[in-house]
Amino acid sequence: MNESATKPEGVRAQRRERTRRELTRQARLLTMEHGLGGFTVEELCERVGVSRRTFFNYFHAKDDAVIGHRDDTLDDAALTEFVNARPSDATGISSTLMHDLVGLAIASIPFDVEHPEDEPNPEMLVEREPQLLPKFMREGAELERRMIGVIEFREGLAPGDPRAAMAVQLIGTIVRASAARYFTPGNTTDFAALLLESLDSARALFSPTPEGTE
Amino acid sequence: MNESATKPEGVRAQRRERTRRELTRQARLLTMEHGLGGFTVEELCERVGVSRRTFFNYFHAKDDAVIGHRDDTLDDAALTEFVNARPSDATGISSTLMHDLVGLAIASIPFDVEHPEDEPNPEMLVEREPQLLPKFMREGAELERRMIGVIEFREGLAPGDPRAAMAVQLIGTIVRASAARYFTPGNTTDFAALLLESLDSARALFSPTPEGTE
Repeated sequence: MNESATKPEGVRAQRRERTRRELTRQARLLTMEHGLGGFTVEELCERVGVSRRTFFNYFHAKDDAVIGHRDDTLDDAALTEFVNARPSDATGISSTLMHDLVGLAIASIPFDVEHPEDEPNPEMLVEREPQLLPKFMREGAELERRMIGVIEFREGLAPGDPRAAMAVQLIGTIVRASAARYFTPGNTTDFAALLLESLDSARALFSPTPEGTE
Repeated sequence: MNESATKPEGVRAQRRERTRRELTRQARLLTMEHGLGGFTVEELCERVGVSRRTFFNYFHAKDDAVIGHRDDTLDDAALTEFVNARPSDATGISSTLMHDLVGLAIASIPFDVEHPEDEPNPEMLVEREPQLLPKFMREGAELERRMIGVIEFREGLAPGDPRAAMAVQLIGTIVRASAARYFTPGNTTDFAALLLESLDSARALFSPTPEGTE
C-alpha cells in the first residue's frame, strides 16, 4: 500500500548510497594517486559530478570520505539474509556460521577482478597515508562490535560469549588473507573464490583429515 | 667435547638474554607509567641495575628497548620443539599443527596471571604511545614472515603455499583474542588456559558437531 509514495523514496535512498560510495571510491583513488594533501574536495566533486554542497551533505571532511560511511561497510540485504540463514534445527553454534559470514563478506565487499587497482582497500591506503590508521582502526573496532552483536543475536548466545568475538576475529582474518592474495600482482582469481578457498584452508587447518588416510 | 669452554659461553648468553628481556620489560612499564618521553635511559638503567654503556650494547635507543629484541619474541627451545613435533606419519598438513603453534605461543609469551599489569603488551603500549605502532607493525610482519618459513619447512609446503600464511594469521588471531581476555579486568584464568580455550572455540566454529546431535 501507498507504493507510489514509498517507491521514489527507496529509489532516492539507493541513489544517495550510490553517490556516497562513489565519493569514497574516488577519494580513495585520489589518495592513492596524490596523497591526502594532494587533492581538494572540489577536485573530488568534479570527478564524481556533484557540487561541493552535496559533498558536505555526505561527509564532514575529505578524510571522512576516504574512510567511508559506516553504513556502507555491510550490505543491508545480505546482513538480513545472514541473520535469517541460521538453520532452524540448529542447536548451539550453527555449523553454517562461518560459511554464512563468508557469504556476507562476499556480498559486502565489491572487489572487481578486472580492475583490482580501482578498489583501494584500507591496508593500501594506510600504507600510502599512515595518518589514516587511527580512524580505520576505530571503524574496524566499531564493525567488530556490531558484528559480535549480530552473531550473539543470530546464534542465541549470551552477551560476551567469547565464541561470538572469536567468530568475528576469525572471519576478519580470512577476509584480510583473501584480500592480500587478491591484490597480489598477477592474481586473476576473483575475491569470492579466494574467500571460499581461505575458508577451506582454515577448516582443514583446524580439522584436517586423520593422518595417513588422505 | 670442550664442554668446559662452551658451558660458560652458554651461561653468558643466557645472562645476556635475561638482561635484554628485563630492559624491555622495565622500558615497557616505564612507558605505561610515564609515556615514552617521561623517562630517560639512565632511569631505565637504574631500574635494571646496568650501566648506560651496557644498555647501548643491547639497544640503539629507548624506543628500541620498548619494542624489544627480535630474538626475544620466540622461545628458541620451543621453536626447535615445534619444528620436530610434526608426527612422522603425517601426510599433507599435520593435524597437530595448530595445537603445536599454541604450544609455541604458550612457551614464548611469558604472561604471569598473578600480575598481568607487569607485562604490558604491544596493544597496551600502542594505546599509550601511538607513535610505537609503525615499529610494532614492522616487527609483527617480520615475525609473520619468519613463522611462515618455519611452517613451510616443518610441513614440507612449497614456498608461498597460502596455507602456511593462513596458519600464521589464524594463530595470531587466537593469540590476540586470548590476550584481550587475559587482560580483561577481573580475569583469573592463566594465559595458557585461555589460549587452549580459544583454540577449542576456533575448532568448534570451523567444524561444529552436526546439528541436532549435540
